[in-house]
Amino acid sequence: MTYCVGLRLDAGLIFMSDTRTNAGVDNISTVKKMHSWDIPGKRSIVIMTAGNLATTQSVISLLDERSKAPEDRKPSILEAPSMFQIAREVGRTLKEVIAANATTGMEADGAFGATMIVGGQIAGSAPRLFLIYPEGNFIEASDDTPFFQIGEAKYGKPILVRALRPEMSFEEALKLLMVSFDSTIKSNLSVGLPLDYIAYDADSLAIGHAARIEQDDPYYQAVSNGWGEALTLAFDQLPEFTFD
Amino acid sequence: MTYCVGLRLDAGLIFMSDTRTNAGVDNISTVKKMHSWDIPGKRSIVIMTAGNLATTQSVISLLDERSKAPEDRKPSILEAPSMFQIAREVGRTLKEVIAANATTGMEADGAFGATMIVGGQIAGSAPRLFLIYPEGNFIEASDDTPFFQIGEAKYGKPILVRALRPEMSFEEALKLLMVSFDSTIKSNLSVGLPLDYIAYDADSLAIGHAARIEQDDPYYQAVSNGWGEALTLAFDQLPEFTFD
Repeated sequence: MTYCVGLRLDAGLIFMSDTRTNAGVDNISTVKKMHSWDIPGKRSIVIMTAGNLATTQSVISLLDERSKAPEDRKPSILEAPSMFQIAREVGRTLKEVIAANATTGMEADGAFGATMIVGGQIAGSAPRLFLIYPEGNFIEASDDTPFFQIGEAKYGKPILVRALRPEMSFEEALKLLMVSFDSTIKSNLSVGLPLDYIAYDADSLAIGHAARIEQDDPYYQAVSNGWGEALTLAFDQLPEFTFD
Repeated sequence: MTYCVGLRLDAGLIFMSDTRTNAGVDNISTVKKMHSWDIPGKRSIVIMTAGNLATTQSVISLLDERSKAPEDRKPSILEAPSMFQIAREVGRTLKEVIAANATTGMEADGAFGATMIVGGQIAGSAPRLFLIYPEGNFIEASDDTPFFQIGEAKYGKPILVRALRPEMSFEEALKLLMVSFDSTIKSNLSVGLPLDYIAYDADSLAIGHAARIEQDDPYYQAVSNGWGEALTLAFDQLPEFTFD
C-alpha cells in the first residue's frame, strides 16, 4: 500500500508521500513515489503515485521521456499550457498504461490500477491540485476540499479533517502531516518511513523545500513520541463521562 | 457500513455500536446492531454485528429462537458451558446462514458476509471477548490486543491504539469510545448516531449499564465539539517544525 497527501494552502502546495512498496508482507522495499519537474521561473509540477508499481513507474517514465526528447515533446507536461491540461495528460497516460496491461474484465483492470495526485503552477496562473483516477478522469481541490489523500487514507484522515486550515504556515502543515502519517504508520504495516516531502511556495515557480525524512529523523521521532502524550492531554481536556 | 468496538478492560467489557444501515446512500435506516442475553447470576452475553443485514438478523433470530424454545434448546447460547462454546455456536450459525444464502463462488459469499463481536461471562470463568469471522472461525482478545473493531474500523483506530489502557475506568473508556466513534462519523456517512453501549462489570453476571446515545445527547455533543479544540491544544504541544 501507500499513503500520500497533497495540501492546497494559501501559502502554496505541500506534498508528502511514504516510500514503502510491498507485494505481500514478505516482499517489501523502498520506492520513491514523489516525482517533480520544473523549469525555474516558468512551471513546477509534482506527481505522487499510489497503486500498482509497474503501472505507476511506467506512467512516470512515459511522462519523463516525453519531457526530455524535444522531437517527441508533444504532448509533454513541460509544454502543456495549463495545469488542467497537465492533469489531462497524466490521466490519459495512466489510462493508456492500465489498458495496455489489463486483459478484459473489471478484475484485471483493478489489479493494474493506480491513483495519482498532481499539483503545481504555471507562470500566470494560480497553483492547482488534482486527484487522478485510474479511469483517467480527475477532480480538483477547492476551498471546501483543500486536500487529497491516496492509498491507505483512512487512518490519517480524522486529524486532517479536524486540524487542517488553508491559512496554516508550511511549518504547521508539515507538522500536521507528520501526525497524520504517524497515525497511519502505527496502524498499517504497508505504509512506512522514510517520507518524502515537497513544499511549493505559491508563485515561486521552483521546487523549494524538498527533503526526505528518515527513520531516525529526530523531529519525526519527537512528533511520534510526543503525540501519544499530547493526545492524553487533549483527552483529559474533555468533560468526564458519568453514568446517569 | 457499521462501526462497532468491543473493549476488554480490567473492570469488565464494554461494547459500543452505531445504528446506521444502508443499501446505497439513498437508502439508510436505523437498526440496532447490539444484542444481549442474560440469566442474572449465571451468564451475560453480548453480540454486535456488522455486514449484510439479512445475514446478521437471521443469525440473531436463530440464536434467539434457540434460546427461547426449551425443547429445541440444544445448542443454545444460554446453555453452552463456556464462552468459547458460545463463540463456536455463533460462528457455526453465521457460517450456516451465509452458506444458505450464497450461491457458489467467492463473490457471492462476500456479498452475504458478516462479522461479529461476541463477549460476556459465564459464572465461574473470566469475561471473554471474541471476534467471529464470516468463515465461522474466531479469535479472542488478549492483553496484547484488548479490543476488536468491526465495520468501518480504520478512522477510529489510531486513537484507540494510542490511548486505550486496560486499567481505564468504564467512564474513561466510554469517553474514549465516543472520540473514536466521532472521528469515524465525521469521516464516513455510512456510520451514524444514535450509538448503543453496554458496559459489563466483571463478575456482575448481569447486563449493567446499557443505554442509547441520541443525536442530541449533550455529553456526546460536548465531546464532539470539544475534541477539535482539544486536538488543537495537543497539536500545539508538539515541537515546531523548522526547515533546515
